[in-house]
Amino acid sequence: MNEQLLTRQSLKAFAESQRTTFEKELKTLVEIPSISADPTKDQDIQRCAQAAKSLFERYGGHAEILDTPGNPLIHGWFSKDFDKTITVYNHMDVQPANEPEWTAEPFEFTIEGDTYRGRGSTDDKGPALSAFFGAVAAHRAGVPINMHFLWELEEEIGSPNFEKGLKKHKDKLKTDAIVVSDTVWITRGKPSTPAGLRGLKGFRLTLETADHDLHSGVVGGAARNPISELITLVGQMVDGNTGRVLIPGFYDEVIPPSAEELEGWRVSGFTTETFMKDHQLKGIRTQNPVEILTSVWGMPTMEVHGVVGGYTGPGIKSSVAPRAEIKLSCRLVPAMDESTTMARIHAFVKSKNPDVVIHEEHGLAPFKGHVAGPYAQAIREAYQFAFGETCVFTREGGSIGAVKTMEDVLGSEVYFLGLSLPSHGYHAPNENYDWEQAGGGMAAFAHYFETVSKM
Amino acid sequence: MNEQLLTRQSLKAFAESQRTTFEKELKTLVEIPSISADPTKDQDIQRCAQAAKSLFERYGGHAEILDTPGNPLIHGWFSKDFDKTITVYNHMDVQPANEPEWTAEPFEFTIEGDTYRGRGSTDDKGPALSAFFGAVAAHRAGVPINMHFLWELEEEIGSPNFEKGLKKHKDKLKTDAIVVSDTVWITRGKPSTPAGLRGLKGFRLTLETADHDLHSGVVGGAARNPISELITLVGQMVDGNTGRVLIPGFYDEVIPPSAEELEGWRVSGFTTETFMKDHQLKGIRTQNPVEILTSVWGMPTMEVHGVVGGYTGPGIKSSVAPRAEIKLSCRLVPAMDESTTMARIHAFVKSKNPDVVIHEEHGLAPFKGHVAGPYAQAIREAYQFAFGETCVFTREGGSIGAVKTMEDVLGSEVYFLGLSLPSHGYHAPNENYDWEQAGGGMAAFAHYFETVSKM
Repeated sequence: MNEQLLTRQSLKAFAESQRTTFEKELKTLVEIPSISADPTKDQDIQRCAQAAKSLFERYGGHAEILDTPGNPLIHGWFSKDFDKTITVYNHMDVQPANEPEWTAEPFEFTIEGDTYRGRGSTDDKGPALSAFFGAVAAHRAGVPINMHFLWELEEEIGSPNFEKGLKKHKDKLKTDAIVVSDTVWITRGKPSTPAGLRGLKGFRLTLETADHDLHSGVVGGAARNPISELITLVGQMVDGNTGRVLIPGFYDEVIPPSAEELEGWRVSGFTTETFMKDHQLKGIRTQNPVEILTSVWGMPTMEVHGVVGGYTGPGIKSSVAPRAEIKLSCRLVPAMDESTTMARIHAFVKSKNPDVVIHEEHGLAPFKGHVAGPYAQAIREAYQFAFGETCVFTREGGSIGAVKTMEDVLGSEVYFLGLSLPSHGYHAPNENYDWEQAGGGMAAFAHYFETVSKM
Repeated sequence: MNEQLLTRQSLKAFAESQRTTFEKELKTLVEIPSISADPTKDQDIQRCAQAAKSLFERYGGHAEILDTPGNPLIHGWFSKDFDKTITVYNHMDVQPANEPEWTAEPFEFTIEGDTYRGRGSTDDKGPALSAFFGAVAAHRAGVPINMHFLWELEEEIGSPNFEKGLKKHKDKLKTDAIVVSDTVWITRGKPSTPAGLRGLKGFRLTLETADHDLHSGVVGGAARNPISELITLVGQMVDGNTGRVLIPGFYDEVIPPSAEELEGWRVSGFTTETFMKDHQLKGIRTQNPVEILTSVWGMPTMEVHGVVGGYTGPGIKSSVAPRAEIKLSCRLVPAMDESTTMARIHAFVKSKNPDVVIHEEHGLAPFKGHVAGPYAQAIREAYQFAFGETCVFTREGGSIGAVKTMEDVLGSEVYFLGLSLPSHGYHAPNENYDWEQAGGGMAAFAHYFETVSKM
């Protein structure tokens, strides 16, 4: 191993020398609209898998495309010969990009100074590629460790086939530890790594009361109105003003964050002002920073995502819809359980409006992370080395279903070395990534591989 | 006047002889998509006005297109020389036809036996054309009365410019009485004419809490959810299950129907079974027929018509929308007043969620009709003559804003000689009209003109 190539200075030079190449590769990936939620994008998903495979092959690595009952997995590696294997998990699928606020084509990659814009740039193609170039650097320096990559193509739809794929290819995917790079810091310059993730359980409520649109004059008053009934029901399920869920027992399993954890959150660098600015919020339920973090990291939610049915054009069409759907999801905190929560929701809905049908979507379990031991220490060191700042163990309000699945199926612990920032706009219009995080990320991953190789 | 041409037998023969012609003319009108709610259909609105004008001219009548600040009015007539003038009101604009349940192109006119299908066939082009052919018959028989027609092109959007148009062309539109043919019987074979109409007041609630879509993991719990807030608010405004409006004072002005009226409704031929079948309802708020009629004719409502904002594609997209809109309207009964009702709604919304903005749509006043006097008697006789059945005075749950406007501006009383049936599907997919109502309608109008000419 040539440690000279792994100093902070050398890795900085490496990143600069690769910058144009990195941008070209990120452009290629971002411009493939690998939207897993859109069934018409299947060819782009396959193209994305091929592009990822060829990426490994062009930089001295190897890759194979592993089949699952759904979208494929990409398994890439730089060596298989050493004793120890680290697998870096990212995902190559992206959110839809139909928001009207996009100021440029979401699938045209643009560079403005240090900023890279396009759907998937920060979630999760940019971090994936930063980790990849970190491995390229470590590989050139001869770091004696098997650096493997597992890239999913169904993360944004809740990883419905990931578990089956992992089980099928388990032998090929054996690893000592897993590093996920799909999380968001609190603020630029202050690395953070989550000690817990919320789970996610989506469900849809549907109600049909007629066959077709009705005239609100001719039948209104006697005829049922399915949108109005669902609104009444959902209004009884969650207080939209406070976010408080009104289903009996909903919060029973919640373990409040410890005093120590709360103190960590207090000094994490989080400010209400930055949070509101980063997410361009016009209002917020509480101004207190620790209350905000407790709401996002430590408490479950019930969100309404959309209502289908009825007229949505300009003005008013005074008809009564025959059927309606309300789309909801709950974020779940560790110790909560999807089936217990759904059982409570089923019982509540049945008691309030038995005609309403609940359609459950795929769930993602919440995850309680590891904050001690040599692998956690290697994460701390990697951040300190690359970004010159101690990282804080926080939590993540989002869900990465793959995390729990990987621990369960592969039997290895999962750690987080995320690179995204709140201002990058996960799932938002004008999603972006930037060179500071990319170049720093390369150094962080190279250093991580080096540290682990010496363990 | 050649009364031989006005016997039931002669008018039956007249209708049969004109059937193909009637169908050709109805086809022409239905196949012009004169959707007043759709700003891209302006040319079709103008084409429809021209087609209507040329219709009069081809059958020995005259017509002119009267301008308003919005869509034009068509004023047609067969004579201006007699002492007495009757004006028949219909409208030539139609509802949008975007419902997926249409089994054929909505703007392709189809004939299946006695049934005519297409958007606008029953609301209101078919009844307009039936009245028109009734006037053609009366004209040929030399009925000594001025038979005038006033066809609007903005009825389906609440007649926003009708009052201005009437005022501008008031002198040309002087008339002794007005007959509106845009109402629906209770059941086939049992003519009915409304003694009251409900008004309509639409409004939209909007709320914006952020700038763009948010990630429900990253901010969910702390960030406001505008769809959820509006759902909570609307759930406090109206009980979706019962339809009961929860705004304080909402029902204060409602005058319950008299015992006599209720008795009339009881024997009107209305049955719950037919009502549910005609409107293809899968459920209903009450099975009691008089309670249904009271809800539809005698009580105000608050309906939710649609919710804009958030994700409405397949499955779930777990983002939080930055803004949302809920579209609502109230049907108002006579004695209620739009501004009083809206003042209560404004106060309620302000007290529950002051960030919500209310956008009021154009309102239509409720209308209390005339059931006595020679003109009302002539309506009764026309129905009896043409359809062999006594008509009942019922009410109409729908709103025709033009009615109140015509009484106010032209100073003449409005009566109703409607021809549509519940099964024709006003505002519904697969809207249709039929030959029995068309041919009978021609006779009813011809007889009406004859009766009034003798008054």
